[in-house]
Amino acid sequence: MNYSIIRYILGWIFNFQAFAMFFPCIVAVIYGENEFLDFILCIVLCLVIGLLMTHRKPENKVFFAREGFVAVALSWILLSISGALPFIISGCIPNVVDAVFETVSGFTTTGSSILADVEILPKSILFWRSFTHWLGGMGVLVFLLMILPMNGGYQMFLMKAESPGPSVSKLVPKVRTTAMILYGIYMAMSVVQVVLLLIGDMPLFDALCTTFGSAGTGGFGIKNDSMTSYSAYSQVVTGIFMMLFGINFNVYFLLLMRHPKQALKCEEARWYIGIIAVSTGIITIFITNMYGSVGEALRHAFFQVSSIITTTGFATTDFNLWPAIAKTILVMLMFIGACAGSTGGGIKVSRLIILVKTIRKELKQILHPKNVTKIRLDGKIVEHDTVRSVNVFLVAYFLIFAASVLLISVDNKDLVTNFTAVAATFNNIGPGLEMVGPTQNFGCFSDFSTFILTIDMLAGRLEIFPLFILFMRDTWKRF
Amino acid sequence: MNYSIIRYILGWIFNFQAFAMFFPCIVAVIYGENEFLDFILCIVLCLVIGLLMTHRKPENKVFFAREGFVAVALSWILLSISGALPFIISGCIPNVVDAVFETVSGFTTTGSSILADVEILPKSILFWRSFTHWLGGMGVLVFLLMILPMNGGYQMFLMKAESPGPSVSKLVPKVRTTAMILYGIYMAMSVVQVVLLLIGDMPLFDALCTTFGSAGTGGFGIKNDSMTSYSAYSQVVTGIFMMLFGINFNVYFLLLMRHPKQALKCEEARWYIGIIAVSTGIITIFITNMYGSVGEALRHAFFQVSSIITTTGFATTDFNLWPAIAKTILVMLMFIGACAGSTGGGIKVSRLIILVKTIRKELKQILHPKNVTKIRLDGKIVEHDTVRSVNVFLVAYFLIFAASVLLISVDNKDLVTNFTAVAATFNNIGPGLEMVGPTQNFGCFSDFSTFILTIDMLAGRLEIFPLFILFMRDTWKRF
Repeated sequence: MNYSIIRYILGWIFNFQAFAMFFPCIVAVIYGENEFLDFILCIVLCLVIGLLMTHRKPENKVFFAREGFVAVALSWILLSISGALPFIISGCIPNVVDAVFETVSGFTTTGSSILADVEILPKSILFWRSFTHWLGGMGVLVFLLMILPMNGGYQMFLMKAESPGPSVSKLVPKVRTTAMILYGIYMAMSVVQVVLLLIGDMPLFDALCTTFGSAGTGGFGIKNDSMTSYSAYSQVVTGIFMMLFGINFNVYFLLLMRHPKQALKCEEARWYIGIIAVSTGIITIFITNMYGSVGEALRHAFFQVSSIITTTGFATTDFNLWPAIAKTILVMLMFIGACAGSTGGGIKVSRLIILVKTIRKELKQILHPKNVTKIRLDGKIVEHDTVRSVNVFLVAYFLIFAASVLLISVDNKDLVTNFTAVAATFNNIGPGLEMVGPTQNFGCFSDFSTFILTIDMLAGRLEIFPLFILFMRDTWKRF
Repeated sequence: MNYSIIRYILGWIFNFQAFAMFFPCIVAVIYGENEFLDFILCIVLCLVIGLLMTHRKPENKVFFAREGFVAVALSWILLSISGALPFIISGCIPNVVDAVFETVSGFTTTGSSILADVEILPKSILFWRSFTHWLGGMGVLVFLLMILPMNGGYQMFLMKAESPGPSVSKLVPKVRTTAMILYGIYMAMSVVQVVLLLIGDMPLFDALCTTFGSAGTGGFGIKNDSMTSYSAYSQVVTGIFMMLFGINFNVYFLLLMRHPKQALKCEEARWYIGIIAVSTGIITIFITNMYGSVGEALRHAFFQVSSIITTTGFATTDFNLWPAIAKTILVMLMFIGACAGSTGGGIKVSRLIILVKTIRKELKQILHPKNVTKIRLDGKIVEHDTVRSVNVFLVAYFLIFAASVLLISVDNKDLVTNFTAVAATFNNIGPGLEMVGPTQNFGCFSDFSTFILTIDMLAGRLEIFPLFILFMRDTWKRF
């Protein structure tokens, strides 16, 4: 383990945090809120630690996958702890466990909240809460890759460890340029959404926070009823943008490069849109009698489907009251998740495609034992290593899932609450069903369970392995 | 596809069924029940069909994996349909969908019932119901392998397709001898259990039916309250025997061959016993306040754990009333299941061991990319093909699981009922929670859902692939 380079990267995380907190600080100034001072304090604290840690550049440049995983895992942990400071210092969330939960929920773009009433919070705190979604969505280390004054092979390892999905493709040969293109697309789409929301009836502050929530596929709302009280127009715009942010960003890159045909061929995006269409259709049929018209039912069905499959978690209606089949579909979408290479969470559509194709391959192998069949995605052969790691991911996924449900069941809540609480946090969605349904919150859990669910959110966002690696003895050996 | 050999094997299934129905026929005579004639009718019917189909031996002896899978899948389907005839003809279960459900539940050793009151049924029908458990437990084709007047390589393919677990090991070089040893152990253990139950307070009829249920890990009871009203002694005996029937029969073979050291080394059996011990311990702690003493709590905890992990499904108490953590543990045990090569269902402990080991291997590979690590079970290297098929099994398992929950949710029951109904049938357990809890039954579902759950039971018992193969176009091509 190359300790000095880890120290250096973590130092930059603190610098980054100080920079990020600058924005809610401005909001506090604009609205004349006292939290201005709290944010200044946090900024100074982060800067001092950060500058101390980055003062000396690492001499040892050795950087392998293990360093990548450890750097990413520790970065996110420190990010969450330092990011919780404004909530604690301002007194908005005095309980440390709850404050860290809320921050992790923000950065991991989960959107689960322990707050029963968000409307009483100062604007600057609300802004910080939603802003963490936007920062966490595309990835904090991907951001640092753009600016970090370092060269070497380490970049790809960092990118691999933080980016969601079974395999990471560089859009262009240089990792730094790839990171800049990704953030460019992300930024541009966010601006378009803000403008479209402003054209509707939404105030700027609401438009910004809603966009942060949908772009990062996070889902923190600034109203207690999430998106229910906004106009149908705002709901439709947000619904569409959530869906767009859940698509593999490669597609947008191909469109930018004027390869529309290649972009349209992306298997993952086609499945993703297909799943959304079918789910919306079925749910609409079963909930139409609950709403005034087919149109309204369709709007609610689409919004909720888009919100859940992208793992955003905004809601326009209390879907906990929907019939069983609609709820079952939503729970399944929680697991499917969005596309790899998007800001969404969950298992990811491409993983599922690969897994489904392994079944077809196995059946063919039984019938024709001598034929060698390969799994293809977008016409390209999927490497054996990728298939293996997808399989292992799935196994680890279900083991952690089961262990979490078991651990939080000591609180003696009903099984649906426990099951969907873990599903909602581990897949980085936000709301679940029953006691953690869209009109409820996570404040009902004990500190122990809150802590477990916090770990689940981190494990979900980092796709498990970085956290596992932290607990291997081999990881910490010096060379 | 070699049609003539499939025809021949299926013919023997009918002959076998006629032979099997001979036993309840005797019971009907002993108790002077009119169902005597119904069974005679069924026997004649099966014999006529069977003899017609087996009259001409197949000339074409070509037999591959595909023939094995198809023969097994169709055998079980025909077995279920013909086995349902006594229920229908006697008028005990007039609805054909329900009757087939009950029979499939019997042969697949599930033990889920659509009957609200079993105590009003004639003894001969009760006997037939429980006897199907015993027949299905070790496998009907394994039985035929002992007697079928045929030679050739087909035997191993049949054994592979019907036996549960990731890989099948022949105990001795000859498949026929292996089948005889397995049935010998099975028979001997069953006799011991009957004798032990008779030593207690149980009448012979009850002892036989209870033994059929525990030996096959089925779980049909002949009382409406399952095992609740039997003495503590009978409950403990049954609890221990369920556990024993869930152990890999290789262990007993090694003990018979006087290799106790090798038998004790069996990793799967050790994990299995470990899981039972830990689960029983935790549940006892959380339910002690519900029962008179720690001893009583321990007895109920052990019985339920043993019943659920072996996928038997007997109950001595209404565990639906237990606290969340105890219920969560039981739901997890439903998925883990018993050992491979036992009469139990579920995912199987050995599959889980292999899967857990793939995670450790993956983590080591991340840290040391150049090292080649192999997965070992009982000290032997697990072949890549086995690991792959275990992974594919898991994927297919969860896809079928999700699809089934979705399909039966059209009945608009609560999510726990739907989830545990599928868990209980697909893993061949019997009772679930809420509306399909141990004091309830499956009669509440629509015919459509009953049909889906019937398929789940078959898919669970045959471990999915034989049924999938039936629906592949390639399967049905002539050479």
